[in-house]
Amino acid sequence: MTVKRRPGRRPGSVDTRGEILAAARTVFAEKGFDKATVRGIARQAQVDPALVHHYFDTKEGMFAQAMHLPINPEEVVPAILEGPREEVGERMVRLLLKLTSEDSARQPVIALLRSAMTNEAALVMLREFMTNAVLFRVADGLGVPHLRIEAAFAQMFGLVMARYVLQLEPLASADDEELVELVAPTIQRYLTG
Amino acid sequence: MTVKRRPGRRPGSVDTRGEILAAARTVFAEKGFDKATVRGIARQAQVDPALVHHYFDTKEGMFAQAMHLPINPEEVVPAILEGPREEVGERMVRLLLKLTSEDSARQPVIALLRSAMTNEAALVMLREFMTNAVLFRVADGLGVPHLRIEAAFAQMFGLVMARYVLQLEPLASADDEELVELVAPTIQRYLTG
Repeated sequence: MTVKRRPGRRPGSVDTRGEILAAARTVFAEKGFDKATVRGIARQAQVDPALVHHYFDTKEGMFAQAMHLPINPEEVVPAILEGPREEVGERMVRLLLKLTSEDSARQPVIALLRSAMTNEAALVMLREFMTNAVLFRVADGLGVPHLRIEAAFAQMFGLVMARYVLQLEPLASADDEELVELVAPTIQRYLTG
Repeated sequence: MTVKRRPGRRPGSVDTRGEILAAARTVFAEKGFDKATVRGIARQAQVDPALVHHYFDTKEGMFAQAMHLPINPEEVVPAILEGPREEVGERMVRLLLKLTSEDSARQPVIALLRSAMTNEAALVMLREFMTNAVLFRVADGLGVPHLRIEAAFAQMFGLVMARYVLQLEPLASADDEELVELVAPTIQRYLTG
């Protein structure tokens, strides 16, 4: 079932991509991440699903862009899985530090988290995205139980919260190498220990 | 400088303790934890400082009670420090699981955290309490750098957030023994590794 675009709109008109993302935000908030579909988002945006696919390869990538997240699972998951297994902890911590080092990258994550703490729909959306699009893919790629990837996530999530929300010192000002040395063995142990 | 109680109020009247706690909440929110004083709280409550001391042994205990926190540093810090050093990780994780197992104990913590994410005064108050009244006392008692106790805190804080705010499964439903086995070695390594 295709839904016609509004009259006078051309594919690739200046704001089509932006309108698809706005529609995606609405649909993700209403349905959660798992139940949202490209077709449903196309319907909400009043465009053909093929046009959505023209702009966005996957639902995961669309979610990341709709929420302005610095984490696109299509890039992050392979980056974690590629490389020596005995260095996966270090790769994950370095990636986390890189992704959270820019204020402009952190703000949308913290905004989404703030919503999740007060709004059930935002919570469901964030949880489904984090687990099904990111954590479980890494765990399954490594052959690790889901409980262990979630323990690793808890450490990394707590690190970001303690540094950038609670702003605990000396943690907030610690340099990257010091944090890698401190935290990478924790992540490594959860995933391969 | 003593400030007279309002006329007609007797020490020990039904709501004196509650009024001191209400005054404490106001003063902590305005001054933060570090700069708030028993004298200032007594002034706000219009009672004699001795009366505040009659109800509350320490500023730390008063803060915990004013915020309805399940963590009274006067009890928690010695409980962590007492006992074999090689089991401090396990003691901390067991204590955390015990303190957060009751819904009624978790709710005030999550409420305070929610405030801290949107309100600078609440953030300062929470941060000063967490570091100066709890974490640094444990670190100093063990002779451990503050950075390491904060890494341990980040793991435990992330664990509580992932279980009770994000409600990630299977982590949220994991049993205590499984979590102790998984997370206690992390805390132990930060503190004595």
